[in-house]
Amino acid sequence: MDKFYTYFRSSAAYRVRIALALKGVAVESLPVNLRTGEQHGDYAAANPQALVPALCTADGVLLSQSLVILEYLEQTYPNPPLLPSDSMQALAVKSIAYHIACDIHPLNNLRVLNFLKNELAHSENTIQTWYAHWVRKGFSALEKQLANSAGKFCFDDAPTLADCCLIPQVYNAKRYGIAMEDFPIITRIYEYALTQPAFIAAKPENQADFVE
Amino acid sequence: MDKFYTYFRSSAAYRVRIALALKGVAVESLPVNLRTGEQHGDYAAANPQALVPALCTADGVLLSQSLVILEYLEQTYPNPPLLPSDSMQALAVKSIAYHIACDIHPLNNLRVLNFLKNELAHSENTIQTWYAHWVRKGFSALEKQLANSAGKFCFDDAPTLADCCLIPQVYNAKRYGIAMEDFPIITRIYEYALTQPAFIAAKPENQADFVE
Repeated sequence: MDKFYTYFRSSAAYRVRIALALKGVAVESLPVNLRTGEQHGDYAAANPQALVPALCTADGVLLSQSLVILEYLEQTYPNPPLLPSDSMQALAVKSIAYHIACDIHPLNNLRVLNFLKNELAHSENTIQTWYAHWVRKGFSALEKQLANSAGKFCFDDAPTLADCCLIPQVYNAKRYGIAMEDFPIITRIYEYALTQPAFIAAKPENQADFVE
Repeated sequence: MDKFYTYFRSSAAYRVRIALALKGVAVESLPVNLRTGEQHGDYAAANPQALVPALCTADGVLLSQSLVILEYLEQTYPNPPLLPSDSMQALAVKSIAYHIACDIHPLNNLRVLNFLKNELAHSENTIQTWYAHWVRKGFSALEKQLANSAGKFCFDDAPTLADCCLIPQVYNAKRYGIAMEDFPIITRIYEYALTQPAFIAAKPENQADFVE
């Protein structure tokens, strides 16, 4: 069985949890508490990036980077597929996923917000401004992109890797109190996804390591 | 012929230029000047993300996100390959590429440094501290990762998508005066790559839109 290094609050781990649940893949979940800095202990010896998620295959290969883990799952457990079979459509899905993973999420994750707070001595208000700026900029572009592709999910009516990335990003934005009324397509997809069992199972509050 | 929206100073466009040169693919290059904000004009109508690079195929499909464009090039122009044929090795290459593209580059690109300067009123010194923090953190992890995979390039002796991402990141770090002595493997790969014609052709100073 694959070992899955996760943290309930990590958006990138949440992406992988959604894919695992959609595909019905069982893994051994090993929580790494990012808030107490557990990633810098023994875990860093196995994963130099000291980030979660990571996945260690039954053959002992350690995969870091959530997008890589999602591709591994797609290769290894192809059903149900999380990418369209048409290669250009698959790239359109990845364009949405990578936009979130490369241009929105990296600016707003915990280590960056901590740097703004601790090293640059910014107030909670300024950190909120930073968070809102990048997420609103990203969602505005995404909303236009989704107008061309979305059905019930980001690309048509079945969940894809794009939804694995979008839902955790919206969940996170709502935690930070971002108003969503300018993003009706994103909101509609989010609300629909959260009625589906796999997306419910992957939520932070439904993880074994969840704490308030 | 594909149309390629680029900017000489964009690290993400630089990634794609390397792949185009390695594969010997000719494109129509259309520069978008990010420093004067040209990306917010007519270009944004075609590409809502208003970022470069983007690639418009001969069929009129617009691909945004450099990682997506790299995958498109790999699918469409498979020779020479920029990914190993073994699927787990290909994921190892992507793990390096995505580490750079998701965890290093997004924190240090122009729009972020501009936000620190203009909206948060930080000094050049603080911006330099920010830049150095994220690039050193990323390169430290990468150096350990490369110890297991590197030959002349990031993965063995032939260039891959990982090198397409690494070389622009090192070029950028050197522009910002980051000391590289703690990163001997990265430095060795960088210096070797810059002796190769495709990597030379892709350099910012060798682009038609280059200005001092």
